[in-house]
Amino acid sequence: MAHIEVKEGVPGIRSLFQFSPETGKPLCELAEVLLRGPSPLSSAERELIAAYVSNRNDCMFCMNSHAAAARFLFDERKQVVDELLKDQTADSLSPKMRALLWIAAKVQGSGKYVTPNDIENARKAGANDTDIHDTVLIAASFSMFNRYVDGLASFTPANEEDYLEMGKRMGQKGYHI
Amino acid sequence: MAHIEVKEGVPGIRSLFQFSPETGKPLCELAEVLLRGPSPLSSAERELIAAYVSNRNDCMFCMNSHAAAARFLFDERKQVVDELLKDQTADSLSPKMRALLWIAAKVQGSGKYVTPNDIENARKAGANDTDIHDTVLIAASFSMFNRYVDGLASFTPANEEDYLEMGKRMGQKGYHI
Repeated sequence: MAHIEVKEGVPGIRSLFQFSPETGKPLCELAEVLLRGPSPLSSAERELIAAYVSNRNDCMFCMNSHAAAARFLFDERKQVVDELLKDQTADSLSPKMRALLWIAAKVQGSGKYVTPNDIENARKAGANDTDIHDTVLIAASFSMFNRYVDGLASFTPANEEDYLEMGKRMGQKGYHI
Repeated sequence: MAHIEVKEGVPGIRSLFQFSPETGKPLCELAEVLLRGPSPLSSAERELIAAYVSNRNDCMFCMNSHAAAARFLFDERKQVVDELLKDQTADSLSPKMRALLWIAAKVQGSGKYVTPNDIENARKAGANDTDIHDTVLIAASFSMFNRYVDGLASFTPANEEDYLEMGKRMGQKGYHI
């Protein structure tokens, strides 16, 4: 049961958006622009970073829902999502994505863990300033979303199947309150 | 020097908002509604939670700027800010604020660290659902802001005096892009 009185059965962060629509609005807008707005990274790649950070934070709701969105968007390449979440790396990802995921993992621990060498490696693999910016902000924002969902113990559906429809909706329609 | 090319000398998160105004907009709106919108917690108390979490994350820019805003807003009681940041607790704070800061410290580590007992203690000290919600979301969002600022190594003014004017502006005018 959630730590505060939210509507029964509404999963994860949606129940918190209903409790506090004033903060839900900018949080949805942030997710929409960050995961689906203009970026050199595809939405599939950005959902993958979100799922990866949520996995490292052990946030089941965010991990399952964003992994489902990433699987939907990667479509025929969807096995890369499970490969990454299982092994924490994925040979079928580009060197650029692997270097960016390394930075995302650093940010998940602390922003201070990112070194000039990490940035240099990402640049050598083809990342530009916007790739690096977007990766750091996705990792930082999921360090927030994960803590918001788990810090209030919001309802987390238990079965992976529960997230299939959610992932499809997120991948198609995105984030709106 | 920042990890990406931002305007020289623009401090902390403001240089990142200039780099990416699309994400800066919802981030500013979140800070404005969360720290200054309707809440049972005063803006001084909310800035204090922000400074406390930033201190625990060792994020000098966010800690110094939000501590300065909290000092400005606490006015004659401003010594409570330094007491808290130095000792990690403050006898002159209300039992409710102390119980909420305990929850904020848990969230800074992980949302999963918050126990039903922590929530019960806050309720016994007078906290309601909105106090608890706002505390968890402030702690979660500064887990993001701190990682964003430090993950991109944005410029951090070194002297406490540099933050005096910033804190006054934040306390008076708030957060707008």
